[in-house]
Amino acid sequence: MSSSETVEVTGHLMDSGVLSQILDDIREYEGDWVIDSIDVGREAADTSTATITVTSVDDEALQRLLMRLQTRGVNMVDPGEASVSPCDQDGVFPDGFYSTTNLPTKVRLDGTWLPVENPEMDCGLVVTREGDRTRVVTLPMSDVRVGMQVVCGASGIRVTVPEVARDEEHFGFMESDVSSEKPQAVLVRQVAEGMREAKEAGRKVLWVGGPGVVHTGAAPAMVAMVEAGFVDVLFAGNALATHDIEANLYGTSLGVDLAHGRGVKHGHEHHIRALNTIRKEGSIAAAVESGVLTGGIMHALVTHGKRFVLVGSVRDDGPLPDVHTDVLDGQRAMRAELPDVGFCLMVATMLHSVATGNILPASIPLVCVDINPATVTKLADRGSSQARGIVTDVGLFLEQLAHELVPGYRRA
Amino acid sequence: MSSSETVEVTGHLMDSGVLSQILDDIREYEGDWVIDSIDVGREAADTSTATITVTSVDDEALQRLLMRLQTRGVNMVDPGEASVSPCDQDGVFPDGFYSTTNLPTKVRLDGTWLPVENPEMDCGLVVTREGDRTRVVTLPMSDVRVGMQVVCGASGIRVTVPEVARDEEHFGFMESDVSSEKPQAVLVRQVAEGMREAKEAGRKVLWVGGPGVVHTGAAPAMVAMVEAGFVDVLFAGNALATHDIEANLYGTSLGVDLAHGRGVKHGHEHHIRALNTIRKEGSIAAAVESGVLTGGIMHALVTHGKRFVLVGSVRDDGPLPDVHTDVLDGQRAMRAELPDVGFCLMVATMLHSVATGNILPASIPLVCVDINPATVTKLADRGSSQARGIVTDVGLFLEQLAHELVPGYRRA
Amino acid sequence: MSSSETVEVTGHLMDSGVLSQILDDIREYEGDWVIDSIDVGREAADTSTATITVTSVDDEALQRLLMRLQTRGVNMVDPGEASVSPCDQDGVFPDGFYSTTNLPTKVRLDGTWLPVENPEMDCGLVVTREGDRTRVVTLPMSDVRVGMQVVCGASGIRVTVPEVARDEEHFGFMESDVSSEKPQAVLVRQVAEGMREAKEAGRKVLWVGGPGVVHTGAAPAMVAMVEAGFVDVLFAGNALATHDIEANLYGTSLGVDLAHGRGVKHGHEHHIRALNTIRKEGSIAAAVESGVLTGGIMHALVTHGKRFVLVGSVRDDGPLPDVHTDVLDGQRAMRAELPDVGFCLMVATMLHSVATGNILPASIPLVCVDINPATVTKLADRGSSQARGIVTDVGLFLEQLAHELVPGYRRA
Amino acid sequence: MSSSETVEVTGHLMDSGVLSQILDDIREYEGDWVIDSIDVGREAADTSTATITVTSVDDEALQRLLMRLQTRGVNMVDPGEASVSPCDQDGVFPDGFYSTTNLPTKVRLDGTWLPVENPEMDCGLVVTREGDRTRVVTLPMSDVRVGMQVVCGASGIRVTVPEVARDEEHFGFMESDVSSEKPQAVLVRQVAEGMREAKEAGRKVLWVGGPGVVHTGAAPAMVAMVEAGFVDVLFAGNALATHDIEANLYGTSLGVDLAHGRGVKHGHEHHIRALNTIRKEGSIAAAVESGVLTGGIMHALVTHGKRFVLVGSVRDDGPLPDVHTDVLDGQRAMRAELPDVGFCLMVATMLHSVATGNILPASIPLVCVDINPATVTKLADRGSSQARGIVTDVGLFLEQLAHELVPGYRRA
Repeated sequence: MSSSETVEVTGHLMDSGVLSQILDDIREYEGDWVIDSIDVGREAADTSTATITVTSVDDEALQRLLMRLQTRGVNMVDPGEASVSPCDQDGVFPDGFYSTTNLPTKVRLDGTWLPVENPEMDCGLVVTREGDRTRVVTLPMSDVRVGMQVVCGASGIRVTVPEVARDEEHFGFMESDVSSEKPQAVLVRQVAEGMREAKEAGRKVLWVGGPGVVHTGAAPAMVAMVEAGFVDVLFAGNALATHDIEANLYGTSLGVDLAHGRGVKHGHEHHIRALNTIRKEGSIAAAVESGVLTGGIMHALVTHGKRFVLVGSVRDDGPLPDVHTDVLDGQRAMRAELPDVGFCLMVATMLHSVATGNILPASIPLVCVDINPATVTKLADRGSSQARGIVTDVGLFLEQLAHELVPGYRRA
Repeated sequence: MSSSETVEVTGHLMDSGVLSQILDDIREYEGDWVIDSIDVGREAADTSTATITVTSVDDEALQRLLMRLQTRGVNMVDPGEASVSPCDQDGVFPDGFYSTTNLPTKVRLDGTWLPVENPEMDCGLVVTREGDRTRVVTLPMSDVRVGMQVVCGASGIRVTVPEVARDEEHFGFMESDVSSEKPQAVLVRQVAEGMREAKEAGRKVLWVGGPGVVHTGAAPAMVAMVEAGFVDVLFAGNALATHDIEANLYGTSLGVDLAHGRGVKHGHEHHIRALNTIRKEGSIAAAVESGVLTGGIMHALVTHGKRFVLVGSVRDDGPLPDVHTDVLDGQRAMRAELPDVGFCLMVATMLHSVATGNILPASIPLVCVDINPATVTKLADRGSSQARGIVTDVGLFLEQLAHELVPGYRRA
Repeated sequence: MSSSETVEVTGHLMDSGVLSQILDDIREYEGDWVIDSIDVGREAADTSTATITVTSVDDEALQRLLMRLQTRGVNMVDPGEASVSPCDQDGVFPDGFYSTTNLPTKVRLDGTWLPVENPEMDCGLVVTREGDRTRVVTLPMSDVRVGMQVVCGASGIRVTVPEVARDEEHFGFMESDVSSEKPQAVLVRQVAEGMREAKEAGRKVLWVGGPGVVHTGAAPAMVAMVEAGFVDVLFAGNALATHDIEANLYGTSLGVDLAHGRGVKHGHEHHIRALNTIRKEGSIAAAVESGVLTGGIMHALVTHGKRFVLVGSVRDDGPLPDVHTDVLDGQRAMRAELPDVGFCLMVATMLHSVATGNILPASIPLVCVDINPATVTKLADRGSSQARGIVTDVGLFLEQLAHELVPGYRRA
Repeated sequence: MSSSETVEVTGHLMDSGVLSQILDDIREYEGDWVIDSIDVGREAADTSTATITVTSVDDEALQRLLMRLQTRGVNMVDPGEASVSPCDQDGVFPDGFYSTTNLPTKVRLDGTWLPVENPEMDCGLVVTREGDRTRVVTLPMSDVRVGMQVVCGASGIRVTVPEVARDEEHFGFMESDVSSEKPQAVLVRQVAEGMREAKEAGRKVLWVGGPGVVHTGAAPAMVAMVEAGFVDVLFAGNALATHDIEANLYGTSLGVDLAHGRGVKHGHEHHIRALNTIRKEGSIAAAVESGVLTGGIMHALVTHGKRFVLVGSVRDDGPLPDVHTDVLDGQRAMRAELPDVGFCLMVATMLHSVATGNILPASIPLVCVDINPATVTKLADRGSSQARGIVTDVGLFLEQLAHELVPGYRRA
């Protein structure tokens, strides 16, 4: 009655702790194991290979355990062919559907290994055939429709875990923990370096930001980086954009506060009037065009032709006319910006950082900056294994980052 | 050119610090003042009355300052009549619209003071006339439509700040600060007392919860309180409901964790399958009906005929079929549950607590419980003056609360 | 049987909230009050004066309430003469001793108002007479000796609360709260300005630091500020000095970590060997002299002839030979450095910041920088009314401060 | 020139992640390795054994790496004899001294393996010979004296890492992380169980507490546990004892606060008078005897003949006459209480928890409870591998613990 499968995994199993995690997973899923063979490299630089026979109480349990192990890069020795079932209810996957990781994935159909086009975690895999061409795409649950062909079970699937280079100098920070007690000036330089590399490779830099960017006085620094070409896309909510616009529309009063460090009082009334003003114009871009909005982050994005996706939340006032009030629409708009992103920086927002972490492929370097350790930890916990966290002050961090990236940057 | 108005305020001005806040507001809005008269009660129990002439650079600035001061209960000595302008663009208020507080408010039209029916902050006031009857209702910006009559300026408006009883024993906690160093067992009793009073007065108890309710093992305590009639409405997001359902559908594995205190591992796959299962059933209630869902908080709410409003966010997987994916729809659904609410408890969620704080009238007692001081502080900062914050462990707090409210409650 | 006294207070009573605090104090001490007269300035810039008759159940309670009120600058209309009692037990004050504030204080003896020489909170006042000369000094409880003349009760004492200038631009931050959402770059400049002003006035800059200064990579920035003359005295514990020395003695391994941002591993063994090495030399200065210690913060202090006081705690390993292991000795050594201090910066330490806050006169400007809001709040709560708090990253803060203070500073 | 040694380690190397940690240590110490053999158990329950040849640049580096590896339970295949050198300066170990762990340790002298009597981390090992009897004791650096024989290098030393039982139900919490999102009611029961087991085994329960125990209203619960025999020794600072005594001496005013949940105002003056009162009596016990102190935690400890060690810190006022003002004296007094301790609970104090963690043998189960995750994490990071952390509210935690441990406990 119990069901078994032989799997294998290759890599720096010993010194990365990955073997330990694999056995933990098996235990958590109430399975059992026998290590059939293990070949540890003798020298420090060698990779190891382990072959393990995994057993569960029944085939359903085994399939789910195998899907889980794939998130660690553990694949079946004999993967066979992928199994596909049709969707028979809109927005609902067939039973036993394969739940995706955000890792590079291949699916074997008719003896051929096909790459999954847009890896994203917690989705399903849909197979489409157009003429001779067969494609496998990741699809979120809410977008599946009757008749679509959905991959089920773990057979015929191969997942690759990116090798973390041992000797790499940049992004070696936060290898295992989150701490505010780190040499922060060094970390800033590493982030700047990561952004430059992405741009040099012709890829986009994605920013995800919360209103703390404005409150900590970092808007001028961010504007400088927009102008210098280091912000291609911004994901945010209603709050960042509204506070940024409010600071620019009511500059006299709030400007004084920001310039003198008095801290932002709770001037809801400014906030509400700023929203009404932009709604009257029809959009942020229209407000820039008409001369109503003349400065700040959103203004810089519009005038430099950069992209932004604002997605609403239940606590929003207004909201701004550019905000997606339907969160599924918002997620779709975010997904549409992901192609060619080569670096992602998340600053001062838990909600949008987690949302972005959910849809980003694991192959994109990702840095999360927040003064609250919980935000950074939460993101890393969500399975975004490529995430690096920096617990620091957002205002000073962006100020220093502008110094690194923008020659001659000097705060007014 | 400068513009003046004489205002007055009555209350415990001296010992509540409210006079200090009023003068701060005037300074922040760049106005000036002369204290025309001040009558301080001689004895400790007496109230004081101050009459102040306020001056701003022009009438527009003055109107905005006067609106601001109304949030402190400062009203014009000679309020005059309310001024009304028609809306000429959907979703946009006329310039100079009156931005609301969540305090009891009256509007003077044709010499008569009319009460505002549903006080809510950061909205506009719309005047409707049906036959002889004139009504004033609060309307959020996004719901205003062309032709509606909107109150503008601060004339003809009177706001009452609820007197905080000095000698009250319950809800005297967190008078001025947020701290984890408080006698927590006492606070639990005060919350229980507040809930009992609301129920005895025939009013509803509103809960606002985050997934921490489930993670901290407090679901059994909350179920007991649902059964005992102390949860009439629940506002939450996709996460609380999904984690609660997941814990019940995959009880064997996750149940073990919860029972043994191992902490919840990141079993995304369970999470995703739970979502798919309920989506297949069509709704949470349908899953209860069909016997798929047999326990937990959502099950208890359904079987006891209690209400819940789930509103989505951009980070959601799935979501559950009951979730409002449009946040403005979600806000409307939440508003519809507010009549007759007499007590509100917010537990372990920043997002939904702020959203609820935004729409609650100030007259409803409100307690916010979170282990993170920032969440509690943020809510209090938003102008929810009736808010009381408790920084404590959510799991132990709800456990103790069930002990207070449910005779014979004993954790299984 | 009940006992009364008439007191008066002058200042910006209304807009500073101080009157509200005074009435709160009376209530907390279970007294009662009648406001005899209040003269509020009519204009915003005017000061107010209130005369209040305060009543308590008996004279002892009244005296204690009066002492409490003095911390708010409330003094008796008819202060009379100070009452003095002899100490009859070493280390114990007479009953009813006057418990000090850290505010400028005068004591009336034989009809003459004498200034208290070294204001410090929570101490007693001792009167000494040498020939014609009578002096009043602050003495901590543990240092009082049999026969000393100690001031008792609140009679004959006058306390002045420094007027906080309303329009001052620097150090207006954190007037009422602690927040990480502030324009941080502005705050750095204000601190730099405060230090420059102190130096220009010929006064000393006191630093209080924790080991986070080293862990966050800020040691080079601090060394630059020592060299530039902005660090006259350092108060710290064993940890800051040991980590600084360890980083310099074992530069190869730990240096790599600091340079590459890998985060400090828990190399206790390095730590212990660093301690043993310096103990062998006899002192930090001896280790500098002998060439064993060649860099870092402690090295810079020694070579530039700056002062430091290291005081031990129960968690210390070693400790370094320079550490005061008796905490009362340590407090005495700290007090001895206070004369001529004109500015105090506290960085990344709760323990030593509170200890320093306890002994500093209120007249010395004080800024506390920490990434943990609780540390900053705790200090402000302790009655250090002159304290300003900045919640930010210590590493980036000191890096920026060095940029402001040291022309041409550039991190190696 | 490079130097090598072959070491071995046995245990659940794979699934505990310990092998990964070992290789990390070698890398951090700039050594190199060859895995000579590895025998992984085939089944899940089997232990593994690895033999590794470790290489460093020279013998000194190798010795230090070997000492480091011993903290992981890695011992030399051919340990040889321990090497001993005399101390030639008071308070300074000889160069190359062996730096201890807090694990069970044996030292080989004259062919015999001798157990180290009192394991403590970051100390040295001193060999004493009385007649035929040779003993090895742990000694802190500050207590070593000229002529003592100190073990140097890693030869002849064997360290045992306690096997963590995989299937144990209690204290399985916080296996890998610290989180406030745990089923807290379950954790309380596990702590109660741990205390009962220690008492049944005839061992002592050690508490380490901060003033938060009093502020959170948990003193009555703690008193009940003292009376029921679950508090044998208390380690604390001046603050816990002073606040506890203050609450009892000035019960009327402060009692009101604690009973009504108003939060403790900053009544320094009460605090200072409480200190003076006890100093006058000469000791806490004398104040109990004379009837001055009639309730609270300290009173309960005295009347039930329990032990306490109070150690001062630089921020102390007073302090109480029972407080050790010299921190090294304080550490010695703490060490003297450790024999027969079988369980340790740390509540609401970073300083004394770290101090106690420094001197506790690894074999004593240890639970740290704090609402601040940083405190819990810091302790676990310090190498106290047996530590379990619970992030929760201290007041509710102790209240629940009293419910579990004291039949019929009911808060007054």
